[in-house]
Amino acid sequence: MIVVLTAQAGEQEKNQVIEMIERAGLRVHLSQGIERTILGIIGDRELAASLALEALPQVERVVPILRPYKLASRDFHPQDTVVTVGDVQIGGGKVQIIAGPCAVEGEEQILTAARLAKAAGASILRGGAYKPRTSPYSFQGMEEEGLKLLARARAETGLPVATEVVDPRSLELVAEYADILQIGARNMQNFLLLKEVARAGKPVILKRGMSATVEEWLLAAEYILSAGNFQVILCERGIRTFETSTRNTLDLNAVALARQLSHLPILVDPSHGTGKWKLVTPMALAGLAAGADGLMIEMHPNPSEAVSDGPQSLTPENFAHLVEQVRKLAIALGKELG
Amino acid sequence: MIVVLTAQAGEQEKNQVIEMIERAGLRVHLSQGIERTILGIIGDRELAASLALEALPQVERVVPILRPYKLASRDFHPQDTVVTVGDVQIGGGKVQIIAGPCAVEGEEQILTAARLAKAAGASILRGGAYKPRTSPYSFQGMEEEGLKLLARARAETGLPVATEVVDPRSLELVAEYADILQIGARNMQNFLLLKEVARAGKPVILKRGMSATVEEWLLAAEYILSAGNFQVILCERGIRTFETSTRNTLDLNAVALARQLSHLPILVDPSHGTGKWKLVTPMALAGLAAGADGLMIEMHPNPSEAVSDGPQSLTPENFAHLVEQVRKLAIALGKELG
Amino acid sequence: MIVVLTAQAGEQEKNQVIEMIERAGLRVHLSQGIERTILGIIGDRELAASLALEALPQVERVVPILRPYKLASRDFHPQDTVVTVGDVQIGGGKVQIIAGPCAVEGEEQILTAARLAKAAGASILRGGAYKPRTSPYSFQGMEEEGLKLLARARAETGLPVATEVVDPRSLELVAEYADILQIGARNMQNFLLLKEVARAGKPVILKRGMSATVEEWLLAAEYILSAGNFQVILCERGIRTFETSTRNTLDLNAVALARQLSHLPILVDPSHGTGKWKLVTPMALAGLAAGADGLMIEMHPNPSEAVSDGPQSLTPENFAHLVEQVRKLAIALGKELG
Amino acid sequence: MIVVLTAQAGEQEKNQVIEMIERAGLRVHLSQGIERTILGIIGDRELAASLALEALPQVERVVPILRPYKLASRDFHPQDTVVTVGDVQIGGGKVQIIAGPCAVEGEEQILTAARLAKAAGASILRGGAYKPRTSPYSFQGMEEEGLKLLARARAETGLPVATEVVDPRSLELVAEYADILQIGARNMQNFLLLKEVARAGKPVILKRGMSATVEEWLLAAEYILSAGNFQVILCERGIRTFETSTRNTLDLNAVALARQLSHLPILVDPSHGTGKWKLVTPMALAGLAAGADGLMIEMHPNPSEAVSDGPQSLTPENFAHLVEQVRKLAIALGKELG
Repeated sequence: MIVVLTAQAGEQEKNQVIEMIERAGLRVHLSQGIERTILGIIGDRELAASLALEALPQVERVVPILRPYKLASRDFHPQDTVVTVGDVQIGGGKVQIIAGPCAVEGEEQILTAARLAKAAGASILRGGAYKPRTSPYSFQGMEEEGLKLLARARAETGLPVATEVVDPRSLELVAEYADILQIGARNMQNFLLLKEVARAGKPVILKRGMSATVEEWLLAAEYILSAGNFQVILCERGIRTFETSTRNTLDLNAVALARQLSHLPILVDPSHGTGKWKLVTPMALAGLAAGADGLMIEMHPNPSEAVSDGPQSLTPENFAHLVEQVRKLAIALGKELG
Repeated sequence: MIVVLTAQAGEQEKNQVIEMIERAGLRVHLSQGIERTILGIIGDRELAASLALEALPQVERVVPILRPYKLASRDFHPQDTVVTVGDVQIGGGKVQIIAGPCAVEGEEQILTAARLAKAAGASILRGGAYKPRTSPYSFQGMEEEGLKLLARARAETGLPVATEVVDPRSLELVAEYADILQIGARNMQNFLLLKEVARAGKPVILKRGMSATVEEWLLAAEYILSAGNFQVILCERGIRTFETSTRNTLDLNAVALARQLSHLPILVDPSHGTGKWKLVTPMALAGLAAGADGLMIEMHPNPSEAVSDGPQSLTPENFAHLVEQVRKLAIALGKELG
Repeated sequence: MIVVLTAQAGEQEKNQVIEMIERAGLRVHLSQGIERTILGIIGDRELAASLALEALPQVERVVPILRPYKLASRDFHPQDTVVTVGDVQIGGGKVQIIAGPCAVEGEEQILTAARLAKAAGASILRGGAYKPRTSPYSFQGMEEEGLKLLARARAETGLPVATEVVDPRSLELVAEYADILQIGARNMQNFLLLKEVARAGKPVILKRGMSATVEEWLLAAEYILSAGNFQVILCERGIRTFETSTRNTLDLNAVALARQLSHLPILVDPSHGTGKWKLVTPMALAGLAAGADGLMIEMHPNPSEAVSDGPQSLTPENFAHLVEQVRKLAIALGKELG
Repeated sequence: MIVVLTAQAGEQEKNQVIEMIERAGLRVHLSQGIERTILGIIGDRELAASLALEALPQVERVVPILRPYKLASRDFHPQDTVVTVGDVQIGGGKVQIIAGPCAVEGEEQILTAARLAKAAGASILRGGAYKPRTSPYSFQGMEEEGLKLLARARAETGLPVATEVVDPRSLELVAEYADILQIGARNMQNFLLLKEVARAGKPVILKRGMSATVEEWLLAAEYILSAGNFQVILCERGIRTFETSTRNTLDLNAVALARQLSHLPILVDPSHGTGKWKLVTPMALAGLAAGADGLMIEMHPNPSEAVSDGPQSLTPENFAHLVEQVRKLAIALGKELG
């Protein structure tokens, strides 16, 4: 941590800052430049970060040097983490496709979706039973009934099931039915939910918040890792920008960057990332080329009758077409469709 | 709701869309332009919004016409809502100042802060007992012990207490001690928490999410209103933009706009909105001039020793100075410090 | 164009709007809904767009229906445009790589760069002679001397040259030496320069502005097209978002979208798009997978001695490695390195 | 400038960096932390900034310590700059209102606007003769004829005239007629135009680019200052964010911040900043409360007939009402309407 003093800061004001740092049990490395005095803080990162030095008028700014996450970093864990769900491996040279409707709407819908997903080449089924919706007047999910239908679809197709958790109170119930627990973008910084989900002992898909920096995303992962659950899968799903011709801006820079900063496997969700089914296939391919370990795709037996996210859902035909293109691309990238 | 067909859409494709709309029990108003066919949907807004027409290839886009919230809108409730807490009125020509430290850190700290806040002219005390923190390694709040200290500060000063709720499981406990429940920016779209907080029967401060549009903010308010709690106070606290020289970008446009679209009272939080104590006073004044009904200000007896948000906290002296300027400005705006 | 009246608008206020529209020689299609009155304007799009109806208090909002560009749209020109420079085709199933240093720094530097670029597989040489720099104290380019060196590099390697134009006054000079004129991101809405560059009769690379929507980007292209120059190549180079761990956010959604909305060929510049050489290769591949027709890559014989953009420039070795990966990927995408 | 090496960097790699720095004539201050090695560069800021150290694989990042502008900073010039145009003072305790239509449309329009602006209390007339327009099909301004009409309006009312310059080739002509030259948001980084406008020897209003950071804005000012023209007036006019219910997001944080970082006077343009006439008055007041020295307001004799920006233009009545409120507010802020 580097502390830059203002140009006006005098000897006494400098000493006040040094004293504050030393009183906290940290050491100071002084660098007297021509125009600015800089203090380097040496010692425990968290302790240094807890000092409110910027509250002092003689401090111009404080620059953190070390990254604030540890367990999520490649420095800590240089090898790629591979998360295993049944016989499905996420990370480690495989490309996995998680597919299914936005929401579970009924038995026929989810069973049909599961069969079609599997037939086309998906390895995991998705479907929401608890739906966070922008409007209180929108469909909020089938809840436990939806979880049961997901379990039925798994029983029939053998596909493991990924579904979203939205509340610590229903977490145990969801964990009973699901193979992978998903934290949605809106809950990426619901820190209590992160701590709880860590304790459920199942793999967790952690979606990036729509205005979360990569650093905040990895810190959210750190909440789960530091609570003892290392089976964390990152998922980029689009950020909010000034561009409104797409629902979100799928940020593939973040995928390439997170791959370098972290050892955790990474998925890309081009359905939410674009909000437009016509853009899902090119952005799915782009996501893999950027380095993702898999895709999360909204596919519905009949998108125009979907109760949610129809406009970004692929038809079964378009989904099968996407999988074919993914298969070819994976080989060119030295990977293999899982 | 307006449905624009693609230039390529033929008669049959047009009829398919019309049929879908009519099958849902809605009526269609057809407008055949020279370059595009436009279908106006007449009937229940929610029903129309639930149709996934954009999933059809012949639909270029769907344009909503009516705003998606009702109870929060001025069309529904033309008069300004005034929320009353004890004898403090939020809205209706008064300017209220909510002040206190980011987090409750101990008895002496919160009692001192409360006394200083009151002495300077604040009418409500703030202080966090449950703290949502970006890093798992940061101080997470004193929890119930913090709530008790807030109650003690109220007993001594008579100031009502506002504090944040972060979890449905601790909501009842928080509601026991607090006079106003606060939903933080990160939880603005934690819809289950919104529904629960509505049932607690206390006034709610609803902070705007850091990437929430004004429409989404009012829809979050609609969650609380539609669950039967009309004592909702909006609070603008800065949005996330490309500009990083301030922690957030306090969006006062949103204050002026929300005042026109909604009847709910609005606060401005320049402490989080800027992240820099040197900018708090000018932005507090700007917030009031933009039409806010009050301010939420982080003040700490000793900011450089604060365990959180020290860099954006005012000293007691700077806070007292802010209140003096607010007092003068309020009069020029035809209002009065509460 | 759709005009939505406020809920309060009465008969007389409605008639005032209708009269304004009809007075302009346009027709009105009235749609009386339950909660809102909607007026559809029928007739010339530009004429309708020129009416300032939102200035009237009874108008809630105006929604444009038709896209504001014509010549740049696929509706107008359904086939992909292919731009030809010498025997290099941009668009139409080829993948082209434009490579070279950010700035021309001297004879040896640009000749070495050109030879290395060609040897590795690039088909066009880039290099800036006029440099728009954020700080007045930074190197501003070698100007005419730089143009001459680019011409020498072309003479030696046979690679056509692309270079930036920043001023209408030096345009003629640049056009004398360059094969492709580049409009930089900061000049995307320098409309006079767009008009001038159109008249030079050479292919134009139009970089997307860092906060330009896709619609504004295509409107900037429309400036060039409508002045009679159809050899326009779009180039996505990253937009500005809240994420600061990369210099910009390369927006590949925009590439996929522009491909659908427009017939113009599209390049991707992952060097500016990320600002970090370690991210250039994955994002180059992602850009191609998203549908781009080529890449624009900063490569320098010795990046750590580059006078500008060193941190995002590839070494010759890394560049050669990138080309190898592009070659494989192009085949998987059904294309071919040009 | 601080150079942070990667955790993996060894002795030899460290020495390579040190050597590069010293070879450039700069000194190195070494700080060996527990987890990272940090090199402080001591010496000329510009020289240090020109090193492309981030191109080296052993460099994790480079952190600039000093601000990149000098002449624009308060460190260089602690007192507020006051710009004088005739007997109008911008800065120094006065509040000035620049008012007039977006574009000069004809003699009657601009003369009427000028008379109304003056009568209500404006001290400077604005009006565009050269209009940068997003679409090539929109009205592009009356050009020289517009300048002549502005001069006529000045002759009649005595109000000095501010108008936009868009091209170095017409700069001399504009400078002949105008009292203040305006650089529009789209040209904030048109560096050649900045250098040229500096030479015209007239005061310059420098609008902030819609995605420019405060630092980039001050660097743009530095282009003008370093070319010898110190009569620079900053103008905040809204930035581009995810929020689309307003045309732009007027960033008043930037006003408060720029006032602290720089000595230059600052205006606020709530017309462009919001894009909605109903929001202009509250945001004008907010801008002044945030510390602005004046306002730039679009006012049109008949906004619904304006050829551009009608939706954000005030009627003469609303403008007069705004001035009345500004007058009262100015007094409360210890200032005076000029």
